[in-house]
Amino acid sequence: MRTRLLKASYELFTERGYRATTTKEIAARAGVAEPTLFRHFGSKVDVFEAAVLEPLKAYLARWSRSWVDVSGRVGLAEMATQLVEGLYPVIRRDRNLFIELMAARNDPLSDLYPAAVEISGQLRDGLRMVHDAGFAVTDRYGLWGEDMPATIGAVASMVIGAALFDDWAYPAGKRVPGRERMIREMSTLIIDGTTHRSPRSNESKPGNTR
Amino acid sequence: MRTRLLKASYELFTERGYRATTTKEIAARAGVAEPTLFRHFGSKVDVFEAAVLEPLKAYLARWSRSWVDVSGRVGLAEMATQLVEGLYPVIRRDRNLFIELMAARNDPLSDLYPAAVEISGQLRDGLRMVHDAGFAVTDRYGLWGEDMPATIGAVASMVIGAALFDDWAYPAGKRVPGRERMIREMSTLIIDGTTHRSPRSNESKPGNTR
Repeated sequence: MRTRLLKASYELFTERGYRATTTKEIAARAGVAEPTLFRHFGSKVDVFEAAVLEPLKAYLARWSRSWVDVSGRVGLAEMATQLVEGLYPVIRRDRNLFIELMAARNDPLSDLYPAAVEISGQLRDGLRMVHDAGFAVTDRYGLWGEDMPATIGAVASMVIGAALFDDWAYPAGKRVPGRERMIREMSTLIIDGTTHRSPRSNESKPGNTR
Repeated sequence: MRTRLLKASYELFTERGYRATTTKEIAARAGVAEPTLFRHFGSKVDVFEAAVLEPLKAYLARWSRSWVDVSGRVGLAEMATQLVEGLYPVIRRDRNLFIELMAARNDPLSDLYPAAVEISGQLRDGLRMVHDAGFAVTDRYGLWGEDMPATIGAVASMVIGAALFDDWAYPAGKRVPGRERMIREMSTLIIDGTTHRSPRSNESKPGNTR
């Protein structure tokens, strides 16, 4: 019963988003009475927590752990791939939910606000590990990690944004490129965009230490 | 009277967002009675249209026009600057509103939905002009514009996302870098990320024509 409710919840929340999904619809899809749903879960946000957030948090925790000691093992190309392939597909799959969470993160009165704070914090914790791994790897390559927080922020914004901004960030009149093309393009931008900085170009930029 | 109402509306909408702002507060800040507000504007969404959307649409229209015939005049570095400096500061300044518009773009029942469709469409029209200029400029440089829609989508996602994702895309425990640092970092990533592609690396990527 619980498993059926979780499956129906996950499907409805990811198809329609949190706000547009009712507990009545979840119960109907799971083939149970609505009071049964409330016996298993206290409220709509509790169903959401169990069906959607727990798996997402578990995924992000595994992704964060994947950066432990990455610095000694991999090169920049592998780092770029691990960043892009680790985030883009999962955020894209649940894009409607992420857009709702982003709005909720900005609205302390939303009942999704605590969830949004938790997920966003977990993402930033993972990106801190990417940041630290990035320092170690650029150091090993003899590259200039000029401004690693800005680099990670820009690159992570690209990966998250590309997964969410179908209606905003793609040229009009062109089909929004699919997953394979976006992953290849973003990996190339990250690798080429971070490996061609010379100490000279660094010194020539005023205010670099800010 | 109308000017005072527009000024008060703009301030409140950009400080607090659309939903959290009431017409009562707008009238109070403008020092007029609420019925006066409704005599000048039919509804809250009409005030929003006049105070926030009209200036934003005018800005985006100017920005779009700035790409006309850019291909013959400028280099890649100037293009990157024009893209980053044209979008990042204005989206960052109104970041709370943009987050609300993105949520509304996904929710046809929202009273901001028509505005979100219009603004997002205008942005994509502008990015189509960037796309076409990008083709002309890479051609002139003898570079490979391997997959221009993906390049523009990735780069625009970075610029928009970096302005919006303070709570999501930056490493934990590090201060979110300010405007100067982000503009410099993103310009570098775009220039280096697009100018180091050789025909050989192009051919070696299977499935490139997809």
